Amino acid sequence: VNIFYQPHLHEGRFFLDPEESRHCVKVLRKKTGEEIRLTDGKGSFYRAVITTADPAKCTFTVLAVEEELPRSYSIHIAISPTKNSDRIEWFVEKCVEIGIDRITLIECENTERAYLRKDRLDKVAISAMKQSIKARLPVIDEITKFADIVSGGQEAKFIAYVDAENPVTLKSAAPPNSAYLVLIGPEGDFTPVELQTALQHGFKKVSLGTSRLRTETAGMVACHTLQLINAG
Amino acid sequence: VNIFYQPHLHEGRFFLDPEESRHCVKVLRKKTGEEIRLTDGKGSFYRAVITTADPAKCTFTVLAVEEELPRSYSIHIAISPTKNSDRIEWFVEKCVEIGIDRITLIECENTERAYLRKDRLDKVAISAMKQSIKARLPVIDEITKFADIVSGGQEAKFIAYVDAENPVTLKSAAPPNSAYLVLIGPEGDFTPVELQTALQHGFKKVSLGTSRLRTETAGMVACHTLQLINAG
Repeated sequence: VNIFYQPHLHEGRFFLDPEESRHCVKVLRKKTGEEIRLTDGKGSFYRAVITTADPAKCTFTVLAVEEELPRSYSIHIAISPTKNSDRIEWFVEKCVEIGIDRITLIECENTERAYLRKDRLDKVAISAMKQSIKARLPVIDEITKFADIVSGGQEAKFIAYVDAENPVTLKSAAPPNSAYLVLIGPEGDFTPVELQTALQHGFKKVSLGTSRLRTETAGMVACHTLQLINAG
Repeated sequence: VNIFYQPHLHEGRFFLDPEESRHCVKVLRKKTGEEIRLTDGKGSFYRAVITTADPAKCTFTVLAVEEELPRSYSIHIAISPTKNSDRIEWFVEKCVEIGIDRITLIECENTERAYLRKDRLDKVAISAMKQSIKARLPVIDEITKFADIVSGGQEAKFIAYVDAENPVTLKSAAPPNSAYLVLIGPEGDFTPVELQTALQHGFKKVSLGTSRLRTETAGMVACHTLQLINAG
């Protein structure tokens, strides 16, 4: 199943952008009159018929709309970028497949790489959304200072932190049907000051299990744990 | 923390293999008399002191041994290789971090790539074991025919299969403290005949949630689900 992406469909943009047009007409050889499926990344799927199979600007007419039901919970992971950008791209791909609402890259004291190409991450997210047939593209925020993310509000706020006196797991601490925010630190973890700041802002310190996980693995494990609490 | 790997340590091989010797002496600049930590990948950690800091063959004397406690459950994932070998290597890395006992690559009807460099996968597994400070290297089997894997015995056997009439999730079907075997199919999934064969051999059909997952993501999600059932 191929799903095409047109984020401005609900504003009346009844054509595919150049890259999607090329893929549809040149690669998949779709012809005028053939049906295609689309999403706007905002919660809707569309069934449409091609009116002009132009490889530069493929136009279509919408036949039907189907809304994806909203979920009873939302998952927001704020994570330090990894030194190797492949790893954070992989994290984005896997979380989109599993189901995530928002990703914020955070600059912590021990973050080694504070620059990341957001356009690359958006591309990975769009591709994973289409591949896993989802109608909602998660929000990916520009890099944000640790101090700014901890002061934001959310229902259920957690900071993943590995220490000897940390027997509370995310699985046991997270209530179902909530809006979650989980902070995932860099290699070298959050500093004691950062941990204190988060605790003062109502974050709960949690462990993700007994294994020592890489940053991107920890982020993905947190996302999947919250999915399992609510479904699957 | 750096952990070195010497699989034959218990047989009296008190030196590092060439690659590990180079890493220890050339890269990390360890000197004679310095302490190092090792694992044999068979359940033991060792504390040792370097007796000859030779970059070709670094010798050591063991000071202490510590056994990793055996777990009350074991996880065996049998998975079809992916077309892109990066994806299956990634699966191995993540499962080793999360915790896995055995990985079998299986050749199914819809498997597109039946050849895989096992030495590459072993290398990825060793590196992930060291990185996540574990003392057990999972077994990685050579590619195995689907017919051979289904006839093998294990306590709790599951086949991940996506269809309309599949409301039973792995999370709800898997009992804690068991020896698990989960089969993960290729893109295009198991054939109906393969599914029937597995069911006849006592496998239970399970879903991994509502999301459509890539092969490698499904394998990792199955592994993490079983970990969460038992711990974390």
